[in-house]
Amino acid sequence: MNVNGKNFRTIWAVSDVKSDRKSVHVIDQTLLPHRFETVQITSLQDMEYAIRTMQVRGAPLIGAAAAYGVALAMQEDAGDASLAAACAALLATRPTAVNLQWALQRMTRHLRVIDPAQRNAAAWQEAADICDEDVKLNEAIGQHGLKLIQQLAAARTGVLNILTHCNAGWLATVDWGTALAPIYAAHNAGVPLHVWVDETRPRSQGASLTAWELGKQGITHTVICDSAGGHMMQSGKVDMVIVGADRVTSTGDVCNKIGTYLQALAAHDNRIPFYAAVPSPTIDWSIQDGLTEIVIEERSADEVAFVTGHLANGNDKGQLATVNILPADSMAANPAFDVTPARLVTGIITESGVCQPGQLRALFSGK
Amino acid sequence: MNVNGKNFRTIWAVSDVKSDRKSVHVIDQTLLPHRFETVQITSLQDMEYAIRTMQVRGAPLIGAAAAYGVALAMQEDAGDASLAAACAALLATRPTAVNLQWALQRMTRHLRVIDPAQRNAAAWQEAADICDEDVKLNEAIGQHGLKLIQQLAAARTGVLNILTHCNAGWLATVDWGTALAPIYAAHNAGVPLHVWVDETRPRSQGASLTAWELGKQGITHTVICDSAGGHMMQSGKVDMVIVGADRVTSTGDVCNKIGTYLQALAAHDNRIPFYAAVPSPTIDWSIQDGLTEIVIEERSADEVAFVTGHLANGNDKGQLATVNILPADSMAANPAFDVTPARLVTGIITESGVCQPGQLRALFSGK
Repeated sequence: MNVNGKNFRTIWAVSDVKSDRKSVHVIDQTLLPHRFETVQITSLQDMEYAIRTMQVRGAPLIGAAAAYGVALAMQEDAGDASLAAACAALLATRPTAVNLQWALQRMTRHLRVIDPAQRNAAAWQEAADICDEDVKLNEAIGQHGLKLIQQLAAARTGVLNILTHCNAGWLATVDWGTALAPIYAAHNAGVPLHVWVDETRPRSQGASLTAWELGKQGITHTVICDSAGGHMMQSGKVDMVIVGADRVTSTGDVCNKIGTYLQALAAHDNRIPFYAAVPSPTIDWSIQDGLTEIVIEERSADEVAFVTGHLANGNDKGQLATVNILPADSMAANPAFDVTPARLVTGIITESGVCQPGQLRALFSGK
Repeated sequence: MNVNGKNFRTIWAVSDVKSDRKSVHVIDQTLLPHRFETVQITSLQDMEYAIRTMQVRGAPLIGAAAAYGVALAMQEDAGDASLAAACAALLATRPTAVNLQWALQRMTRHLRVIDPAQRNAAAWQEAADICDEDVKLNEAIGQHGLKLIQQLAAARTGVLNILTHCNAGWLATVDWGTALAPIYAAHNAGVPLHVWVDETRPRSQGASLTAWELGKQGITHTVICDSAGGHMMQSGKVDMVIVGADRVTSTGDVCNKIGTYLQALAAHDNRIPFYAAVPSPTIDWSIQDGLTEIVIEERSADEVAFVTGHLANGNDKGQLATVNILPADSMAANPAFDVTPARLVTGIITESGVCQPGQLRALFSGK
């Protein structure tokens, strides 16, 4: 996508012509929206760090990053033990997103039957293929979602208001995004849109990433506190909700950023269509009950306590700073995801089309 | 309540023996939890400022503060025009809390039939009476809520988990609080409790005030992001929700801090009892439909953009600072309250007892 006139993906490999070694480049998402910087990643350990600290985040991008993590490991040692160790280390970085597991399984299946002498090149190629495929999946999600948006826009006059939670934009994928792909497609098709952006505490991916993304593409948007979505829906100011997902069960339960469940309850209570945009690698065909079968990542309480932004006053005005908002003696808890039961989900937008949550198996049965 | 070994109310009058003039003292709640400071208020204009900037906030405390605002005006000029102008100015400070209107109507009714020569003394006495009555109402709410908590505690083993949103503690009232009064009563009665404290963006009254209050009284609590309440309820970690209210309709619709509606939806979806603790001055007998009849205050977008806390690093570590979390070009919206329809409310805890939301008129019919 376009950043200040230049086209970017969120992750790409670069060859060093002198050493014949490759490195991986990513946008450091922990610095957005305040600074746009890229990071060069040269080792498996650095990729583990990048995923764990959320320099890269978003289920599809985590999958792509993990694939490149395996490639970086193969560049050092292409043996079976190295492959297994790399996959184990990468799998441990984040527990919830199924794309991580999916990408590592795909890399393992592909590489273990290849002679170690060819594995390095094969690993880089497979990681690149995963990235290109992700872009294609998201383009297809965008086109399927576009039709839904066009239908809703045709049924009303004026601007269509879409609410989204967290960041499932191009920054969460290799390009285009999942939940935002239909919004970008609709904007490009000339549908008049306004996006309510849930700030998405504690890490503020909505305020930091989604708002930044939409602004860069010139799409009108307003940031709201996560608590405000229900009121906006009660007041008739939301026509549609689209979110991404970190994992979706075969039965259509949607595990996504903490707070998605509350937005879904409010959408349901106000008869507003609630969609999850989900590329097939995000579907976990092995599980049926999201509430009992998905491990919810408990992240550090520091994410609740510490907030980063530009200093508003003083000698260092404009500098990045981090403040602690909690009383000295208070604890915090930080579950990172929740599960929206399929009964609250109007439909799932996939690369193969849109279906009701209970129809996922049928939609993909021919694949 | 106890603050570092000394007993405080949130608002009190002090006489200057030399001048025979009175001033009002309040805790500056915009500085909590980082600094505990009191502010002396000597004029109507300063009281308007204190209410508008939320140095004092919380529906019952706003009522008490407005009453003292009238007394400050009467101290300058006890004429009819001054009385009417003071009430109009104070009413304009905050639109949602009905207690403001209630206190001003009570002051007006009381004072307009008193000779202006006696009005100054009468105004200070009436404001003091409003404060003392608020304390009594909240004590009664505490005792009625205590019975509910004891019933729930008796039906389970271990610690009872109560979730609350925003701050409806003693800081929101003159003393004891509304939603927290039953919690203080239960703690004092030896019921083992743990409180989930919604941080309550954008102003963080949960993280700043409720957590601070509970900590000062030695009550175990954990701050969570507002989005996390649904997950905690889905996971069986919440036994009861108690919130306060800024205005309750005669039919039991509860207007309270933005996000309350989402917590109520989640409680309802998980069959968890959801109570609003409401002193009768918070009930607006004149309206029946909270969604269409209550004006929701839209506050400054700066409250969403700017977050204040202690600097976590650098030369000024520990100093208070404010940071802007939004991208430079993004707008924000900030509705301050929402309405929880009566159908989602298990019961209303008042000074006269607990009733279903539809039974408020019956409960108070004998009064």
